Amino acid sequence: MKKFATLCFALASTATLADEGMWQPHQLPDIATKLVNAGLKLNPNTLTDLTGFPMGAIVSLGGCTASFVSDKGLVATNHHCVYGSVQYNSTEDNNLLKNGFLAKSFKEELPATPGTRIYVTEEITPVTTIIKAGLGSDMTGAERYNSIEHSSKTLIAECESDNKYRCSVVNFHGGLEYYLFKQLTIRDVRLAHAPASSVGKYGGDVDNWMWPRHTGDYGFYRAYVGKDGQPADYSSDNVPYEPKHHLKVNKSSVDENDYIMVLGYPGRTNRYRTALEVENQFTWTYPQAKAYREEIIDLIHDNLALGSDARIKYESTLASLANYAKNYGSMVESYNKGTTLARKQSLESELSKWISADTSRQHKYGDALKGLNSLIKQDQQSQARDLILGYMNYSKMLNTANRLYRLSLESKKPNVERKSGYQERDIASFEQSMKAVNRRYDAQMDQKILLAMFKHYIQLPKAQRLASLDEFFNVGKNISEDQIQTKLTKMYQTTSLNEQNSRLAWMEKSPIDFANSDDPFIQLATATYAERKAIEEANEELSGNIQSYRPKYMEALIAYFNSKDLPVYADANSTLRVTYGNVKGYSPQDGLVATPFTTLEGIVRKDTGITPFDAPKKQLSLIKQKQYGEYAKQELGSVPVNFLGTLDITGGNSGSPTLNDKAEFVGLVFDGVYESIIGDWDYDTKLNRSIHVDIKYMLWVMEHVDGATNLIEEMDIVE
Amino acid sequence: MKKFATLCFALASTATLADEGMWQPHQLPDIATKLVNAGLKLNPNTLTDLTGFPMGAIVSLGGCTASFVSDKGLVATNHHCVYGSVQYNSTEDNNLLKNGFLAKSFKEELPATPGTRIYVTEEITPVTTIIKAGLGSDMTGAERYNSIEHSSKTLIAECESDNKYRCSVVNFHGGLEYYLFKQLTIRDVRLAHAPASSVGKYGGDVDNWMWPRHTGDYGFYRAYVGKDGQPADYSSDNVPYEPKHHLKVNKSSVDENDYIMVLGYPGRTNRYRTALEVENQFTWTYPQAKAYREEIIDLIHDNLALGSDARIKYESTLASLANYAKNYGSMVESYNKGTTLARKQSLESELSKWISADTSRQHKYGDALKGLNSLIKQDQQSQARDLILGYMNYSKMLNTANRLYRLSLESKKPNVERKSGYQERDIASFEQSMKAVNRRYDAQMDQKILLAMFKHYIQLPKAQRLASLDEFFNVGKNISEDQIQTKLTKMYQTTSLNEQNSRLAWMEKSPIDFANSDDPFIQLATATYAERKAIEEANEELSGNIQSYRPKYMEALIAYFNSKDLPVYADANSTLRVTYGNVKGYSPQDGLVATPFTTLEGIVRKDTGITPFDAPKKQLSLIKQKQYGEYAKQELGSVPVNFLGTLDITGGNSGSPTLNDKAEFVGLVFDGVYESIIGDWDYDTKLNRSIHVDIKYMLWVMEHVDGATNLIEEMDIVE
Repeated sequence: MKKFATLCFALASTATLADEGMWQPHQLPDIATKLVNAGLKLNPNTLTDLTGFPMGAIVSLGGCTASFVSDKGLVATNHHCVYGSVQYNSTEDNNLLKNGFLAKSFKEELPATPGTRIYVTEEITPVTTIIKAGLGSDMTGAERYNSIEHSSKTLIAECESDNKYRCSVVNFHGGLEYYLFKQLTIRDVRLAHAPASSVGKYGGDVDNWMWPRHTGDYGFYRAYVGKDGQPADYSSDNVPYEPKHHLKVNKSSVDENDYIMVLGYPGRTNRYRTALEVENQFTWTYPQAKAYREEIIDLIHDNLALGSDARIKYESTLASLANYAKNYGSMVESYNKGTTLARKQSLESELSKWISADTSRQHKYGDALKGLNSLIKQDQQSQARDLILGYMNYSKMLNTANRLYRLSLESKKPNVERKSGYQERDIASFEQSMKAVNRRYDAQMDQKILLAMFKHYIQLPKAQRLASLDEFFNVGKNISEDQIQTKLTKMYQTTSLNEQNSRLAWMEKSPIDFANSDDPFIQLATATYAERKAIEEANEELSGNIQSYRPKYMEALIAYFNSKDLPVYADANSTLRVTYGNVKGYSPQDGLVATPFTTLEGIVRKDTGITPFDAPKKQLSLIKQKQYGEYAKQELGSVPVNFLGTLDITGGNSGSPTLNDKAEFVGLVFDGVYESIIGDWDYDTKLNRSIHVDIKYMLWVMEHVDGATNLIEEMDIVE
Repeated sequence: MKKFATLCFALASTATLADEGMWQPHQLPDIATKLVNAGLKLNPNTLTDLTGFPMGAIVSLGGCTASFVSDKGLVATNHHCVYGSVQYNSTEDNNLLKNGFLAKSFKEELPATPGTRIYVTEEITPVTTIIKAGLGSDMTGAERYNSIEHSSKTLIAECESDNKYRCSVVNFHGGLEYYLFKQLTIRDVRLAHAPASSVGKYGGDVDNWMWPRHTGDYGFYRAYVGKDGQPADYSSDNVPYEPKHHLKVNKSSVDENDYIMVLGYPGRTNRYRTALEVENQFTWTYPQAKAYREEIIDLIHDNLALGSDARIKYESTLASLANYAKNYGSMVESYNKGTTLARKQSLESELSKWISADTSRQHKYGDALKGLNSLIKQDQQSQARDLILGYMNYSKMLNTANRLYRLSLESKKPNVERKSGYQERDIASFEQSMKAVNRRYDAQMDQKILLAMFKHYIQLPKAQRLASLDEFFNVGKNISEDQIQTKLTKMYQTTSLNEQNSRLAWMEKSPIDFANSDDPFIQLATATYAERKAIEEANEELSGNIQSYRPKYMEALIAYFNSKDLPVYADANSTLRVTYGNVKGYSPQDGLVATPFTTLEGIVRKDTGITPFDAPKKQLSLIKQKQYGEYAKQELGSVPVNFLGTLDITGGNSGSPTLNDKAEFVGLVFDGVYESIIGDWDYDTKLNRSIHVDIKYMLWVMEHVDGATNLIEEMDIVE
């Protein structure tokens, strides 16, 4: 069994390893002693059993984590993970986002936003040998890329032969290892309960990533299956899913320094990138992406009045834009203040020395970093173009047209040869996304966003631009902004892609139909396709070439760490991981200490009556009357609201249950503090803190504010 | 002897009294036990001796406090208290504000900004009986006002017969008591040392009123007198003043919970105002004044480039505008979140009940609050006009013309009958202020400010406006902004008040000369004088009438508190006070604790290289190398920079020495935390914290960064 490592690299102290690391379940027996020493009361080996307790109760929502908390398929996760479904069911007249939602019986539960799925990981199989079997050292990049794609798709198709499963092949350590994940997929998901946004999103963007925090970031789905107990499409005949395992809820919560752990699906970290990548990311990519995001946010704010129907449609987009704008800003700030790059450079220099010191190492790894960096430099040459083309996709019309045309082209091929996202397995969710367009679309807003991003596009050097796109808009022929504006206005007036039926009809059509269409967005998609495809193929060639170096570089790095007895864990990649640590405060600044718990009184202190600090009046009144029910914590003299932990989490962990030493549910992780955002690249034991909803607050609001007693009764509550 | 009270009103707990209160020196024997219990090691009675130790070492700068710290007249105070003098000696080529200033010998010391004085309080005499002797119950308001003025001026003139003294009559408890203050006045003040603004103002407006703090807010003057040891005007023959007492400097600093006290001249608090006044102040006056200030700040920022000669002229104005804009903002925020008004109302209701419960009390105090409030309401009717006329005085030309014309009118009267500010005793400082105009004046900026404020003025209802001012600018005759602009431009082109010689010449001229002048600002001053004088007289009438009720209201309030055995201290009024307490952190928010000390490392953490977070490179380098010299504090593992205390301070206390239990100098108080700004109206034991420069930081910068060893050697440093 491989040893495990931290990312603290050259400067890491082994004393700081306790809370760092996103461990794959199969690694847990190797850190069993550490888990037990940290306070875990379960046998650590039980955590490796994906279908046993507690792992069997942990599910993915694709982007968020969640967990079963009753034997009737009740699923607890974050408010911001059910947000889209609450928004989907909201209208100006019945604003569930604002008022919250509670189904007092199963019948009152509402369909989640189309495409919502609950994934239960049942098997994880190492498939590195199978994937690598197809590779040859004399392959072009494209051949290598396509071979990996082909092997993966073959494995996936075989795995998904039982259509209740969704499978994926995921690479670890940049392609050094591959695993096949098999997930039971529940397709009928319903919204059971969400508090008002003024609870679930209390503090909004102002408090996002911040401490002190007072956010009731929780919500409930319910999983439904057919009467046969098997996953099924939505039907009123469906019945609640009965999971083999669900979590007990411990209403005693936790105390400072207590053991906690989070099981979940962290999305992506970049702790093993090269110095060249790190520097480029923090000095170019993040600042530029932040600027684009803020520009779109300002456009939405300036054009759509708060609470209007159109604005409600963009709230979810806004939340995501703002979330990452702040995220990027924090990372750049931390990077500029910190020593991330210097330590990375020092690690690379140490690594080079270690490789040079031994002929066989030199032979094996000698060209890895240099070769990798040379390809990375190549990639960076077109990054300005790639980034702006990406942000142009915030235009739903542009993006929809491109996707529909691609579907028509891919559908001509045998299923296994089609691009990921356009295979038969993808069609249902493709269709759902086409149906969902209008819920998050306003024509004028879409046009403004496209124009704003297009204006950045035309600033690119000519060689970087797409001739076909320039041609379509007459760029370079002294066209004025007004003329582009006029052209866009006509396109939005003429297109029928803003109609659901039209989009669904296009899903059935052939490339010829597209070529003959007079819909301006379809024309734009077909006109630019060849160039976009050429860019895609160049990127695949590059990606395949990188596969010749990055796995080798990671192998060298792991060998180097192992030589120093430092353990290694893989970067997050949306697969199931375990992180453990303690409830603990920190010092965000010289002269300031963040204490581990906030309390109800802090809500009143922050409240201004204006969004996002507008807690429900009933809640404020209960707090002022100290109506704590059974949920007060003696040391605090009040009900704890949020707490800080030392856990190593990232996006995708959202909604993960926070478990105590007996794997009982004591809260939900929903955020990290501002100073720890750079943790995705560079973990700092002193500053890295996860933020959790305290179970006591969750139950207090459910019982005293929202009267969600039916759900409380349904759960197994212990103390 | 009167008992003393807190302002915690109805909800006060006697347990919270330790740190609240700005005590008059003569009150100290009455709280002797508390002082000793709190940790004072001196005999508390020694604090009543104004000319003994340590009181004899405490001086006023008029607006700031300071202290003698050597037997050669070296005076320590805040950087922001010597800021004007540093600015006065700065030019674009020799920017002392930026670079700091150090005189390595007496000869190198620079003159402070004209008009700078050091006041040493030598006698405080109760004069209530004398002042009240002239009052009759049948007087009009104006008669009462003038009688008090006349009695005061007579006392002052007598006291100032020895011209080395400056005297003042100050009312306490809103006119219930009067004291005569006799202050030795040192007229030759020189700048000895100020660190760079990037030390002395580190954090600037961003950190102003904030914690965590890392500001080296200290600077040094030196007092000079004639060879005979008596105060004298500046002369190169003058010699350093040798004070009878100066403070020892204890370089051990203080620890958490240690006893500290501050002796100083707190400016103004309003802890005994009526609910009507409180509500109006927080819902009208502060928000409106904040808006005017921010408008002027924006004008300066938008029009004068940072570092330009013109901008340097406005830095001091900017600092003051921003300081109070933030101050008002904080107070409004605290008021809206807190219960200040409700507690004030509850106090008034309790007081009324207490008065009604007894016939003699009813007879004595029954009409006090009602009568007072009726006059306050009358005052509020013209507050919009009075505020904007006040802000129009940010135009130096307007203000200078009005003052010069007034001087010509007052000079016709016998000295004792002249308005305060225009008496013989005031002429020297009047002349200094006329000489100083150009150091803080830029014609275009002055015009922009005047125009901006004038635009608010013309929004007033006609009845509130000055007919003569309207007439001068043709307001009400469909005049456009452009026309006003044109008129102003011409006025600024034509006036000669921008020339020092012209202003000084006008000081000698008669009202006839003013009436015949063709200087447009002089014409404006003469045209509007009669109306401005009528407003002044109406205000005096009102003020005199208030004297019939406010002292009675305060007498009732004090009697009520005394009936509950609660001690009473007077609102701050720029007279010498003592406040004592401890070094202590606080919780600014639920989930956050401010620790009592910041350290050098926090400077590096905050530093961005951009003003106001641009510490000197040498300093940053010393910190990174942990070159702490002898100034590190073991518990912190570094040099403390600033610390928090529980002292009850306000503006005017700036520059006060922070003294330990033996009255040794351990720092300088320079600010309060954001949450305690509302303390001027409503003290909160949990949130009220003073911010101090730690002596260790001051000495560390002086020794290691600025090489101010001559000053360190001059002081008596103990440990």
